[in-house]
Amino acid sequence: MRATYIFGAGDVRVLDAPDPKILQPTDAIVRVTRACICGSDLHPYHSLLAKPGGQTIGHEFIGVVEDVGVDVTTVRKGDFVIAPFAISDGTCEFCREGLQTSCEHGGFWNDAAFGTAGAQAEAVRVPLADGTLVMVPGTVDEALYPGLLTLSDVYGTGWHAAVRAGVTTGDAVAVVGDGAVGLLAVLSAKQLGAEQIILMGRHEARTDLGREFGATDVVAERGEKGIAKVLELTGGRGVRKVLEAVGHLPAYEQAVGIVRAGGVISRVGVPQYDQGSIGWPFFGKNTTLTGGPAPVRAYIGQLMPAVLDGAVQPGRVFDREIGLEEVPDGYLAMNDRTALKVMVRP
Amino acid sequence: MRATYIFGAGDVRVLDAPDPKILQPTDAIVRVTRACICGSDLHPYHSLLAKPGGQTIGHEFIGVVEDVGVDVTTVRKGDFVIAPFAISDGTCEFCREGLQTSCEHGGFWNDAAFGTAGAQAEAVRVPLADGTLVMVPGTVDEALYPGLLTLSDVYGTGWHAAVRAGVTTGDAVAVVGDGAVGLLAVLSAKQLGAEQIILMGRHEARTDLGREFGATDVVAERGEKGIAKVLELTGGRGVRKVLEAVGHLPAYEQAVGIVRAGGVISRVGVPQYDQGSIGWPFFGKNTTLTGGPAPVRAYIGQLMPAVLDGAVQPGRVFDREIGLEEVPDGYLAMNDRTALKVMVRP
Repeated sequence: MRATYIFGAGDVRVLDAPDPKILQPTDAIVRVTRACICGSDLHPYHSLLAKPGGQTIGHEFIGVVEDVGVDVTTVRKGDFVIAPFAISDGTCEFCREGLQTSCEHGGFWNDAAFGTAGAQAEAVRVPLADGTLVMVPGTVDEALYPGLLTLSDVYGTGWHAAVRAGVTTGDAVAVVGDGAVGLLAVLSAKQLGAEQIILMGRHEARTDLGREFGATDVVAERGEKGIAKVLELTGGRGVRKVLEAVGHLPAYEQAVGIVRAGGVISRVGVPQYDQGSIGWPFFGKNTTLTGGPAPVRAYIGQLMPAVLDGAVQPGRVFDREIGLEEVPDGYLAMNDRTALKVMVRP
Repeated sequence: MRATYIFGAGDVRVLDAPDPKILQPTDAIVRVTRACICGSDLHPYHSLLAKPGGQTIGHEFIGVVEDVGVDVTTVRKGDFVIAPFAISDGTCEFCREGLQTSCEHGGFWNDAAFGTAGAQAEAVRVPLADGTLVMVPGTVDEALYPGLLTLSDVYGTGWHAAVRAGVTTGDAVAVVGDGAVGLLAVLSAKQLGAEQIILMGRHEARTDLGREFGATDVVAERGEKGIAKVLELTGGRGVRKVLEAVGHLPAYEQAVGIVRAGGVISRVGVPQYDQGSIGWPFFGKNTTLTGGPAPVRAYIGQLMPAVLDGAVQPGRVFDREIGLEEVPDGYLAMNDRTALKVMVRP
């Protein structure tokens, strides 16, 4: 089959790769219907040190089960499935609490030590298939592919940001970042009843979609100016719930600047930094910092019905669709910000 | 009157000071019955730059109302009162939410700009007396002074740590720090139903008191060894609720090391650092960081009954009582750790 590899910063190639095979009785093989490129794939695209052997990439996909190991009971050949970005057994203490990203036997895609490859490929071996995969009921119309694909990561991640922040009816929320996760954090906050949703982003096409998803205000300014603008929009007090969907330090510092005393910063952008401000300006106002890798597996069942019946259209974050061979161009487009989110059709 | 001033690191003096007077119609003058020295007073005692004019110090006291301004309605001359370490109006948006430390018109003691002096003195002017002071009902026996005095800060602060962490029945909790706040965080966690309470501290007299307050395990080791020990005590997974009652960076890093995936670190030690680890090791396990200056005013009413009827004895954290003139020796004793917490009898 063909699969995508990254060899270092800026160096993505589509190559021949061995077809995946069942290795464990709990495995499934899934033929990829659609995959996509994630904002977080841009982190290695920016900074991965040269890796002569390359490594596979991609962690979001929907597809059709092609084969299952003998112990797999919840999906079977021909099922249409959503694969979350984390692999989980569904039975450990953490999975039972809905924190599948901390599964004691799980892991992530593209982890050679864990034995997984990437999703920007024609097919994928899925370990712990019963815990990991979610079957989509009925016949799946192609028009639903984008929405279902967001359930593998970005929609569940935006939802996680809002849920961990405790967004509730009447809340004032700010979302830092107008990428796919930020926009779906807006949608999630709206679904959870937020009244004021301030979207911080400066790409007009994206913030326009953010408004359609429920943003009531858009702040294009950054840094001190952006903070001043948000304070102005909130009577000088700041925002009770800040959803940080970027992962770079300035976005975090922005969040610290705009959060109201007693408020929450919920991060879902993977932090590209180790240290951040948690001293007096953060502590003095009793700020809470929460979030982390989203256990999207926990949310798919809850979020899927509205996607299937069209009540929400999270798939609108995809503004480009390409074939597998064009994946390197897809990275370029996302890196240049000429595409918001790129869907891959193997 | 006599009052305590600090002139720089290690330089505490008791001097003549003007008697406090009613300046605003919302003021009260309180004759101090007992004050004390706080672990957080040691921060300026360690690092305050030389201040030729000196500044007053002390922020915890109980006493008797001597005079009130014309607008004060909730306390009157002769009332025995507890003064929280933060001044608050009791009516603003934040006070109504129980976050009096963020009161829009409030402030702290020893703030020249706010017009307040210190509590290690014979008498104190209390601004916003209706919002700030809490009257103790009935005749107050001297044996209750230590317990009531802890309600001005350290007990409410330990309680805040446990409440913000969400400690509940059956929880596993770790408390980092065996100072007065740490020990009272142990007591608070116990009152809130924690089952396992691991106290991290290495001063045996203190950790012994911690065991009496409810600690089930004591870990004297620090750093990596301390982390390993706590993991060993928790099946390798770490602790759901970590209460950090120190304020120095190693205590925070310890907390990050021992918190269970999906767990909470609740800080009440005033951070003596600006930056801390909030990158992948923190984020990857969906850690929540919360806490801040405790709105002890919100807790006094709830905590006082058990102090008055002797069901709890938080006042046991005081292991030395001195006169006002001996306050400089009190600082030395707390700094040397020959005293856990020093009570001052003006």
